[in-house]
Amino acid sequence: MRLRNKPWAEVTFAQNQQYAPQDPAALKGHWQSRFEKEQPLHIEVGSGKGRFVYEMAQAHPEINYIGMEMQTNALITALDRQVAQPLPNLQLLLADGANLTEYFATGEISRVYLNFSDPWPKKKHAKRRLTYHTFLKQYQEIMGGTGELHFKTDNQGLFEYSLASLSQYGATLEQVWLDLHHSDFAGNIMTEYEEKFSARGDRIYRLEATFHS
Amino acid sequence: MRLRNKPWAEVTFAQNQQYAPQDPAALKGHWQSRFEKEQPLHIEVGSGKGRFVYEMAQAHPEINYIGMEMQTNALITALDRQVAQPLPNLQLLLADGANLTEYFATGEISRVYLNFSDPWPKKKHAKRRLTYHTFLKQYQEIMGGTGELHFKTDNQGLFEYSLASLSQYGATLEQVWLDLHHSDFAGNIMTEYEEKFSARGDRIYRLEATFHS
Repeated sequence: MRLRNKPWAEVTFAQNQQYAPQDPAALKGHWQSRFEKEQPLHIEVGSGKGRFVYEMAQAHPEINYIGMEMQTNALITALDRQVAQPLPNLQLLLADGANLTEYFATGEISRVYLNFSDPWPKKKHAKRRLTYHTFLKQYQEIMGGTGELHFKTDNQGLFEYSLASLSQYGATLEQVWLDLHHSDFAGNIMTEYEEKFSARGDRIYRLEATFHS
Repeated sequence: MRLRNKPWAEVTFAQNQQYAPQDPAALKGHWQSRFEKEQPLHIEVGSGKGRFVYEMAQAHPEINYIGMEMQTNALITALDRQVAQPLPNLQLLLADGANLTEYFATGEISRVYLNFSDPWPKKKHAKRRLTYHTFLKQYQEIMGGTGELHFKTDNQGLFEYSLASLSQYGATLEQVWLDLHHSDFAGNIMTEYEEKFSARGDRIYRLEATFHS
C-alpha cells in the first residue's frame, strides 16, 4: 500500500506513548500492565490503518488487543482514532511482525489475527508471507504452544498456500470459510480492504486454526 | 443421481467377472492377482459411471486402478466401456465404500481418489460424507498408515468441511486448489459431473493430503 508521507505522524506517536509504547521489547512479559484490566490478550499482525483492531476492541471489552503494524503512515490513523476516543483495552505497536518473540514472552498472547496480509505471490518471496513456517513458529511461541490463529484474505493464492502451510506445520484447521460474506458467520468486523474488495464482488476467505504444544 | 433402471445391468456384471469380481472380500490381500502387472494400486471411491477411473487407467499404465461404486446402474457404463476396450490395469468393484476394510488388506492401496462425492449438506448426515473421520480411518487403514488422498468437488460446503475434517484427523494437506480449472495443475482428468459443473462456471476445488502412521 502506498501512502502519502505524513511528517507529523512521528510527532503524534512520540506524544502519545500511553497508547503506543516506543520500547516494546521492555514490555516483554509485562503487556498486561498497559491495560486497565488483566484479561486475554489478542494481537493483530499487520493492522494497517487499524479499523479491524479498533472495532474489535470496541466490540469485545473483555479482551485486550494489540494492533501491530510497521508502517507509521498507516498506523497513525488508528492512533488518531485512539487519541480521539480512547479504548482502555487497546494498544498500538509500531513494529515489525518478524520480531514477535522479541516483544512477547511465551504464552503472553492467546490469539493472533492476520487480515489481508501481503500475498507475496512470487515463490521466491514465500518466506515473507505471514503464514510461512518461520512466522507460524513465532505465533506458536508467543502463544505458549497453544493458541488460535484467525486469518482472512481475499487472495486465493495466499489462502491456498496458508492452508497447506498451517497443516504442514502441525496446526489444526478448526474451521474454513471459502466465501465468508455469503456464510452464516456472525460478528464479522471488516477491515478497510475487506470492505473495498468485497464490494467489488471478490470472495473473502477465512480460517481458524489452533496450535498445540 | 437418479438413473433409469437397467435390468440387463446385473446380467452384464454376472457375465464379466474378470473385470468386476463378485466376491471382493475373497480378494482381500490378493488384489494384485487381478491385474497383468504388480504395480501401485489406486482406488476411486464412488466412481459413478467411471469416466475418471477409466481415463486415468488409460493415461497411467504404470498404476493399477480400482473403480468402486455401489450403484449398479452407474457402474454399468464403466463396465460396458471396459468390455468394449479392456484395460489390463483396471478393475471395477460394485460395492459400498463404507466397507473398505472388508475388501482390502492393510497397505494394499497407496492412493484413494474421491471425486464429486455426495455433499450430504445437512449436519445430521455429516457421517455419510466420504471425508467423515470414520471413512478417513478406513482409507488410512487400507493404505497402511501412509498414503495419499486426492479429492475434488464443486461443492463449497463439502470442501470446507473436508479441509477441517482431514486436518483434525491428523492428515497433512500437501496442496490445495481453490479454482482448479484456472490453475496451472496439469493432467487433470475430468469426471462427467466436473465437465457439466465447470461448463456452467462453477469452481472446482481440489486437495491432496497424506496420511502417516
